Parts: sequence; structure tokens; C-alpha cells
Amino acid sequence: MNDPAHQEMLAPLQASVKEQGDLVRQLKADKAAENDIKLAVTELKARKKKLEDKLLEISKVEEGDQIDRAKLEDLLKQRFFYDMSFSIYGGITGLYDFGPMGCMVKTNLIQAWRDMFVLEEQMLEVDCSMLTPESVLKASGHAERFADTMIKDLVSGECFRADHLINAAIEKMLTDKKISVEKKQELQKLIPLVESMSKEEMKNVIEKYSIKSPSTGSALSEPLDFNLMFETSIGPAAKIKGFLRPETAQGIFVNFKRLLDFNAGKLPFAAAQIGNAFRNEISPRSGLIRVREFTMAEIEHFVDPSNKTHPKFDSVSDVKVPLYSACAQMDGKLPAEMTLQQALKDELISNETLAYFLGRIYLFMVHIGLDPKKIRFRQHLSNEMAHYAKDCWDAEVKTTYGWVECVGCADRSCFDLLQHSKATGIKLVAERSLAKPTERSIVEVNPIKATIGKRFKKDSKLVQQTLASLSASEVEEVANNLSSKGSHSLAANGVTFEIDTTTVEVKRYKKTIHVEEFTPSVVEPSFGIGRLMYALFEHNFKIREGDEQRTYLTLPPAIAPYKCSVLPLSNNAEFQPFIKELSKNLTRVGVSHKVDTSSTAIGRRYARTDQIAIPFGITVDFDSLKEPHTATLRERDTRKQIRASMLELPEIIRDLSLNKRTWKDVIESYPSFEQQENTK
Amino acid sequence: MNDPAHQEMLAPLQASVKEQGDLVRQLKADKAAENDIKLAVTELKARKKKLEDKLLEISKVEEGDQIDRAKLEDLLKQRFFYDMSFSIYGGITGLYDFGPMGCMVKTNLIQAWRDMFVLEEQMLEVDCSMLTPESVLKASGHAERFADTMIKDLVSGECFRADHLINAAIEKMLTDKKISVEKKQELQKLIPLVESMSKEEMKNVIEKYSIKSPSTGSALSEPLDFNLMFETSIGPAAKIKGFLRPETAQGIFVNFKRLLDFNAGKLPFAAAQIGNAFRNEISPRSGLIRVREFTMAEIEHFVDPSNKTHPKFDSVSDVKVPLYSACAQMDGKLPAEMTLQQALKDELISNETLAYFLGRIYLFMVHIGLDPKKIRFRQHLSNEMAHYAKDCWDAEVKTTYGWVECVGCADRSCFDLLQHSKATGIKLVAERSLAKPTERSIVEVNPIKATIGKRFKKDSKLVQQTLASLSASEVEEVANNLSSKGSHSLAANGVTFEIDTTTVEVKRYKKTIHVEEFTPSVVEPSFGIGRLMYALFEHNFKIREGDEQRTYLTLPPAIAPYKCSVLPLSNNAEFQPFIKELSKNLTRVGVSHKVDTSSTAIGRRYARTDQIAIPFGITVDFDSLKEPHTATLRERDTRKQIRASMLELPEIIRDLSLNKRTWKDVIESYPSFEQQENTK
Repeated sequence: MNDPAHQEMLAPLQASVKEQGDLVRQLKADKAAENDIKLAVTELKARKKKLEDKLLEISKVEEGDQIDRAKLEDLLKQRFFYDMSFSIYGGITGLYDFGPMGCMVKTNLIQAWRDMFVLEEQMLEVDCSMLTPESVLKASGHAERFADTMIKDLVSGECFRADHLINAAIEKMLTDKKISVEKKQELQKLIPLVESMSKEEMKNVIEKYSIKSPSTGSALSEPLDFNLMFETSIGPAAKIKGFLRPETAQGIFVNFKRLLDFNAGKLPFAAAQIGNAFRNEISPRSGLIRVREFTMAEIEHFVDPSNKTHPKFDSVSDVKVPLYSACAQMDGKLPAEMTLQQALKDELISNETLAYFLGRIYLFMVHIGLDPKKIRFRQHLSNEMAHYAKDCWDAEVKTTYGWVECVGCADRSCFDLLQHSKATGIKLVAERSLAKPTERSIVEVNPIKATIGKRFKKDSKLVQQTLASLSASEVEEVANNLSSKGSHSLAANGVTFEIDTTTVEVKRYKKTIHVEEFTPSVVEPSFGIGRLMYALFEHNFKIREGDEQRTYLTLPPAIAPYKCSVLPLSNNAEFQPFIKELSKNLTRVGVSHKVDTSSTAIGRRYARTDQIAIPFGITVDFDSLKEPHTATLRERDTRKQIRASMLELPEIIRDLSLNKRTWKDVIESYPSFEQQENTK
Repeated sequence: MNDPAHQEMLAPLQASVKEQGDLVRQLKADKAAENDIKLAVTELKARKKKLEDKLLEISKVEEGDQIDRAKLEDLLKQRFFYDMSFSIYGGITGLYDFGPMGCMVKTNLIQAWRDMFVLEEQMLEVDCSMLTPESVLKASGHAERFADTMIKDLVSGECFRADHLINAAIEKMLTDKKISVEKKQELQKLIPLVESMSKEEMKNVIEKYSIKSPSTGSALSEPLDFNLMFETSIGPAAKIKGFLRPETAQGIFVNFKRLLDFNAGKLPFAAAQIGNAFRNEISPRSGLIRVREFTMAEIEHFVDPSNKTHPKFDSVSDVKVPLYSACAQMDGKLPAEMTLQQALKDELISNETLAYFLGRIYLFMVHIGLDPKKIRFRQHLSNEMAHYAKDCWDAEVKTTYGWVECVGCADRSCFDLLQHSKATGIKLVAERSLAKPTERSIVEVNPIKATIGKRFKKDSKLVQQTLASLSASEVEEVANNLSSKGSHSLAANGVTFEIDTTTVEVKRYKKTIHVEEFTPSVVEPSFGIGRLMYALFEHNFKIREGDEQRTYLTLPPAIAPYKCSVLPLSNNAEFQPFIKELSKNLTRVGVSHKVDTSSTAIGRRYARTDQIAIPFGITVDFDSLKEPHTATLRERDTRKQIRASMLELPEIIRDLSLNKRTWKDVIESYPSFEQQENTK
């Protein structure tokens, strides 16, 4: 935003956001009625959206590097990076198959993630079931709240996502040439509000404007909740209702005890999981951005809520990241670059562990090849967050679809563990040492072995088990009754047993306690692998100057499907032994490569390798036949070439791929080679 | 089977199999009634099972290395290799979560598979959707045939797998002390037949013996088919019935055209996929062997059915594999070791591509650490195979559950591609060059541009499209009508258009054809990752001589979770800098390792690392503090130790892990170190 004219365009929109942001703050400070706050927030969101849209519009003009999405999609389809699943059967929207190139990119991306998070941070990686019983997802809240609003065509039964349907209807009304100025203004005001409307509000809009089914013109149902989980039955009697997991996180939470044990009871520790999750979107759109089956990589970092420092924070404290804080958003300001240290000092980010992960996420995103200028961390406004979250930042990436959330990073506090603990009756806690040991009064009610069996006979075991499972306050009650009345009525499995001082004894004593139990907090960085991949493709999509047909992808070597191509200049038989030898030596040093011996002209073969993002290419030509044997090495982005000994080339490429050596260094160390790429 | 006494025990069983095998052959040769053949085969299976059971019994005695499964399961649970999913909610049978150790083993196993198959063979790896619409699984046959027989308790609704239920009932009857000798013999004869009974036969058994529900004693339903696929609905209107895929293969078949294009139209090529599949087992048992959600790695190698040679067969032709051919099974013989070359020559294996993959599968299984003595390839009898399969071999592994199929390798002929082609109307074919070009008569019916538009107006495009999509025989028919009657009634989208020689012209000419189309055959090696993992754990489970508590796993370095442990002898602060330095240098050379600085005695820490299969351990002791700094290196299986320079150790371990150096060589090159493991 450097152009003063552009800044001038933005100023009134920014002021309008700030005005409303201040109003929201004031209402909250005044503890105004909830509904008033809600209305003010809705208006704030609408103003924010206007500002955001204008910003995107301006940046398109300023940056001038507009991505031709149709051309990119062409390339991705033609080279089979990915394509719609089951398309010979007509296809299913929201489902995609990754072809050989996409699959290699995905594998490399996951490998990079595993290296940077699981290995470097010594996380405990797990691999849990996707099929999940209803009980687990009731506890997590998904069974009730994981829903979108939909509307049905009452005649055909077709379903629409309610917000999409209303937006489309408004847009259609706006194209009516006979529309009055008042109605036009009214409708335009409505647009930004649709996204956050309640079902009641949507119903009113539909009635007010007599909106009908876009497919058939029939009447529409009332807006209704549609749970986005895929349902199925586990086992033959259909007794166990199950779902496909909507996120991988719950698998980690239900294994918390095992993981804590594995970590010898110590906190903090992080568990990680890479796997698929499912959302039955009402009407999937936007390619890989919104799909029904997707791969996630999630981390659950468990930490003592009273101490959210991170031992490795120093390693990222100076990393500058673009932060779009909740405050900035309410003030109509733009995202600001600052070090994580500064952000913590300014209390923009709520704790060090969260800040640490924002830093690591940023470094990862840049490492895999996203454009740093198209990344930002946007903080959730307090009204956006799940009610249990303490703080939440989305790593958003700019694409032709606007800013897209690719990674979420939330402090989920102790919500999940508490929920599962409540649902199962099993304690999900860790222990911390007390600063100084404390003395506690302990009460125990113990069965008297000699008498209890005689008294309760076959129920004796049940009585003893029941006694053993009493909570502290229940024990206190039993002990008090025994002390005062000499007896107590103990309920066990629906039966009442009279216990008294002849069958149980009360023991009271002091005990020095060294540890206390607590429910850990969890910080959750959650990565959408498909979205990151799509963003990577957009940020790395290029067209050669002066040749619209020559599209290519500038993926970094770590992510590119192959690191190197091996090409004979022509199909002259003399080249073959050299090609084989090179291929063998590249394999030996671990460089994945593709040999292309087709008889196509070398320039066209280069263009093909550029399209599948191969960063380096070795060509064996007639000079290679002479001793000492040499070959040319070409770099994809600069299209510059050098000539080097065939024995050296495999290791040069390995070092380039591992970032142990730069292309600049190679260019300076070896004789350059000039060749017309487009000849032949 | 070296003990003559054992051979003597087997002889009558072998003779009995051979007798029945010969009868089956004779009946087939005589083209006997289908039912007679079926009865004879059932009896053959029963005799084979008796032989197999006796063999297992004898091998337990001969090998004497009985695995204590309970102890192994203890270890796997305690070290969280894997455990039942959702167990805090009571667990779901047939679902397992892999903990940190299991997840690392699984990742390493998949990496080994990808290296050995996808990379080395340049396969096209894909990653397809698990959610699959019904239409696809109707075509593949799964919607109809992927079922087990179950029986319901008519009162409680509880479901049982029919064969399990009948077997349990028979066993119960046999325990009755008052049973007559005749009934006992009758029941014993029945046992081996249960597995392959039809629903009708099962019904008769249940009626004859008045079998009731084992849980409630209530009456039972008739046996009924239960489809093993998990069903769900895709999209909100529940319009698209879908299933979770029961295998990954179909994702490859429906992408055949894209993959062939990607491979520039050339055959043979192989596609591969690693991913999850699902089977809604009626009553899962046997731990990881029979589960409801599992990871598979599948290869579909597409090949011209007229030429099933494999270009790399030479590389495995001398590999000796234990083959249990259909013939040997019918003759009551035992599996025999032979080279693949010999097996092809003897026509045991039906083609070179299949033989090639058997060799590669065998090498892979040995590479990952399975005991070669506990692997065999069992050929399906012709009655066992899917009707479309040409030949099928299972790589079976001996475990405490008996011989378990871990890898299947089938020649599926062109069944799948034909089925999908039939269902979609889309050609799934490749082209082969003709040995010599042939001349063919071509007939074309072409629209006359000048008149067709005027004649059919807005329908003109439809008429032209319809003409273009006619099959060869349809074109012939149209051309004949036009030639004889001068006109033809063309049906298009339910409407009939009269075309005649003023709107279309018939063109007949000769054309030289260089290629012909054909539907490729497919050879499918299909790996069950979970089963391989379980077999690995069993084959590598050991107990230290003289110490029943010290269990350990001898996984090879490529599969072990970590390659190396780093242990200070005690928690003396002086050791710390050395531990850090070692850890850094191990990371630099890519050796995954685990640092254990807990204050536990060194012997117990070794025992712990042995349990999680860490093959090498570096210990920093007081001698390490002196210059030149050295440390000890311990090998897991031999528990031998050497002493070497701290600078050298990381590379020694890297080379050991990559099989570039052997432990024997290391032992010989460095001074040995003697230390009591169990002291302190």
C-alpha cells in the first residue's frame, strides 16, 4: 500500500471500521445488552469486509502479478497433479484424486512437516482411527455444533447452503434494471451481513424478498442445521453410531493418558498426527480449498496452564511475522510486521508457547515455498473464537480466492481434556510438584476384612469396590455419618447397604503432599495440507516472459516432485550409457530424478520438466562424449546453464537440493553454457 | 520336517489329501456334475486343513521357539506401539491407534515400501478418495459380493458371524460327556466343512442340531449376507449413496486413462497407492490381523495381455522362494524352495510379471525383518480364486495365529477395466503397434455443412454430435440405410431425426492401420501394512536367556523407531555437553535417536531401549571426559560393546543403519568394551 492515491481510497473505510470498533468496545465496557453487542459486531464485520475487499482490489493493481487461475488449473490437470475423483462416473464435487505429481508434492510436503515439527521438536506422533463413535464426538461438541445452515427446495429436495443461496438471490435482484435506488442500497447493505446471520434472520430475509429455489423456482424450507460429519454404523447390528472424524485432534485427546505415561509423566510435551478428516460440505466450491475429504497435520502441545513459557522460544524471538491483531482489525489498521518478542511484550499474543508456534509455522510456510508477502497471521476477534479458546490466530495465505486460512493456531485451554474426562469419568490430568510440600488432612473409610465378608456375603466385593471409588467429598460424608450416627446407607448399583463401625473403620491422619494434579492446557497448531498445496501452486505459478504457453512452477527442491531431470540431447545411441551412469549415480546420492529419452526437441522437453517443477536438468550432448566427460546443468527459474564434469554433477545437485549450496555459487564456479532452448 | 517320526505322522494325512486331490482332478477331467465337484473340493479342503494343522503342531515342537503372545502383547501395549482405539470410552473392537513407537515403525515400513517399489520401479503413485460412490463399487462387484454370512439372535438382535457361531456350537456339543460316539464322529467331520458352507447348508446344520443364540439361548435368524462396506451418504440431500472403500485398487482403475496419458500412452506401467481401506467386520478378532480400518499398499501393474514378460525379471530369476503350488497342495506335498526361473519353467507361476513380483515381494519381506523360514507363497486353488483371476499367490507368514496372508499377488486379467468401461461407456484401453500394418475398410457418415444447419436448425448440433458418437457397427448400419433407401431414422436424446443423402454423405475408403486397441491386463501385488507389522513384531520378539522379564525386539535398523540411543552413564552434569554434541552430530548425519538422561541405572535404560527395538546405543561415561573423547557403542542383539572416538561414532551408526557396514566389521575394528549391564 505505497501509492498515496490508494491510501486515500482506504482512509474512509478504515475510519469507518475504527468508529464501529470503538462502539463495540464501548458497549462491552458498559456491559450492554447481548443483542446490542451482537448487532454492533455484525456491523463491524460488514465494515471490515468492505475494507478487506478494497484492499484485495488495490493489491491486485499494485502487485501486477495477477495469477491466471484458469491457466494454472489447466497445468495442474494436464500434468495430473490432481483432478476430480471418479470423473469417469461423472465425478463427486469436493473429492479429488492426486496424480503422480501431486502425490509426490504431498509426500514431500508431509516429509518437510515431519522433519520440522515431529523430529526437530521430538513430538510423539500417533496414528489414530478415522471411524469414531458418537460418544466421543458428543463430548467434543461436534455432534451438536459442527453444522452449517442449509435450505431445501420443497419440491425437488435439492439442498443449498443458506448463505450461498441468499447471496446469489441478492445478486440476482441487483441485476434487475428496474430496481429502485432504495432497494438497491438496502440489498447492498445486506450482503456483508449474510455470513453471520442466525437461522431466524435468514428466514426473515427469505420471506421479505420472496426468495425461491434457484433451480426450480419452488418454495423453500426454513433454514435448518446440517451436521457436516459423515455418519455410518460400526458393526453388523448397527448398534454403534459412528462418524468419520472431522479433525484428527480428538484421537490425541482420548490417548492423553497413554501419551503422558509414555513421556514419563512430564509436561510440556507435544503429540502430532498426520491423517485424513472428513466434512460433508453442503456445496463444495473453490477446488482444493473446500473439500469433503482432506489431509491434516495437527499438533497438540500439552502445557501447564500456570506456565506457558516455551524452552525454545529464543530460537524464534527475532523472527518478524506479519500480525493482524484483533485490535488492529477493530481499529481499521492493516497487518503489521513485528518480531515475536515485540508481539509478546505488547501482549498481542497471549503466551510464549503460542508465539513460539506462530514463529515455527511462519518459518515452515516460507521454507516450503509460499510467498512471504502473501502470508499473514490474523487473530480471531473474541466473538469469532470457540467459547473455550483463550486466543486463536489463523495463518492466512493470499490466493485468487482471497485470504484463505491454511493453518490455525489456537490455545484451546483445557476444554477437550475436561470434556472427555466428564464423559468417561476418567481423570485426564498431569501432576506438578508443589513449590513447598503442604500438609493435608486425609480421611479414609476402610473395610474391616474380618467382618465385612461375613456381613455382606456375595455383595462384599461390590461394597468394597464402591467404597474404593468414592470421591473425597463422598468419603467425608460417609466418615461423618459413621462418626455421628455410627452407620451409613451406602448406595451401590441401585441397592442400599447399611455399613457401620463393625464393618468399616474411619481413619483420619495428616499427610505431606508434594504434588498436585491439574488439567493441562493445549496449544493446537493445525495444518490443512491440501490448502497449503493449493496456495503453493498459486504462489509458484509463473509464465515465461513473451511466451504465454510456457507456464511453469517454481517449487523449491524440497517440495518439487523430482529434484532433477536427465536428458540426452537426442536419441543418439551413444548417449545411452552416460544417461544410465548418471541415473545410477544420482540414485546413489539420493537425488530423485526423471529420465526423459523421448525424441522430442530438447527445448520442449525442458518446458515439460519446468511444468512439473523439476528445478535442475542435466543434458548429455555431443561434447559429453569427449574426455573428460562433461554435461550441462540447467536451473529452472533462471534458465541459466553451466558445464561440469559428469562425475561431479550428482553431488552438486544433491547439495543444491539440500540448500547446502546456492545456484549463484554454482554459476560462479563453473563455465557457463549458452544454448538456444527453443531450437530443434 | 526332519524328524522321521514326524514324517511318519504326516504320511497318512498327505496320502489322504493326494487321494482326494486326484479324485477332484478326475471329476474335472470327466466334466462331472458341478455339485459333485463341489462336494469333492469341500472334502479336499477338509483333508488339507487336517494336514496343515498337524504341520503347525509339529513345527511348534521342532522349532521350539514358541512365541509367548501374551508377553509380546504386554510389551506392545506398555511401550504404546498400538492399543485399542477409544478405550477410555470402552473401546471399539477392530479399531487400533498406533502410539509413537508404532507410528514410527509404520512410517519406516511405508518408507521402505516406497523406496523398494515406487522409487526403484518408477511407479506412478496416486492418492485417491476413500469416500466412494455406489456406482463405482457396483461395477467392481463389491456392492454385491463383498459380504460375510451372519446370523441374528431373534430376540436381542445381536449378530454373529455364521461360521464362528456354528463352530462354537459344535465345540460346545463335543464337550458334552454324554455324547454318543456316532454323534461325536459326525460333528468332528463337520468342523472343517463349516468355513465353506453355503447359507442353505448352514441353515440345515442349525436346524438339525437346534443351535441357539450363545448369548441368550434365543432362536436364531436364517443365515444372511452382510455387506462388509461402511455405508454413508455424500452431500446433504442424501442423494449420493457412498461407501468407504474396501480396497485402494479401484481408485487406480478409475484413473487409468489419466495415468496412461501421463505415461505417454506406453505399457507396461505400474501405479501404486498407499492408503486406508475399511471393512465392517461382523466380529473382529486376532488383534491387528483382522481390523475394521487398515492401511494397504497396492500396486496395479498394467501390461499387454499378449506379452506378460517383465524387463527386470533377470534381477530376481535366481531368487529362491518357498512355493506352495496348487498342485503340491492337491498332492498333499509340502511347500518347496525353488528359483523363480525354475518355477516359470515348470509352469507353476503363470507368467513372468507375476513371478517378478513374487520375487520382489519376497525380497521386501526379508528386508524389513521377517523370518525367511516363516514365509511361503501359497497359490490359490482354482476354486478359491475370484472368477476373473488368472492366477493368484498369497504371501503367507507364520504367526501364533497360524499362516496369515500378508500380501496377495494376483493376475486380475482385464476384469476391472472392462467392468468400469461397461458401467461408464468410456473406453479404458491402450494401443499396441501391429506387427505389420493392415488395410481396413473404413466407412464414415459425415454431415454436409452447407445443408445440415438449414435442415435441422437448433437441433443441428445434436444431430452432428450423435453422428460423431456412433460405434463402428452403427455407422455401418446408417451407411447401409443411406445407400439402399437414401435415408435413415437417427435416434438422438429420445427424438428421431430423418437424415438423408442431402444432409449427410457416406464416405468409404481403405486405410492402413498401424495400431490396435486392447484392454490391458493387470497384475496386483497388495500389501496389508498392519498384518506385516504384526508379523514383524512376532518374528522379532525375543526374551533374554535366563531373564524372563527382559523382552526385546530385534527389528532391523531400517524399521526400528530410532536407530540409536544416547545415554549418559549417570546424571553427572559433566556428561551433558557431550550428550548435546553427540545428538547434534547424529542429527547432522540423519540418524534418528533418543536421548535418555533419566537417572535410572544404565542396565535398566538399555533394557528399555531394547524393548523399543533401538539397535544401537552410545553411552558417555567417565572415560569419555578424558582426551581423546570416546564413548561406548552397544549393539542390541549381541549386547557386545566397543569403544570409539566420539567424532567417529555418528558416522559408524549411520553406516550400520544403512547396511553399508556390518556389526561384525565394527567389532573387529575397534577395541571391545566389557561392562556389566545389570550393575548399578
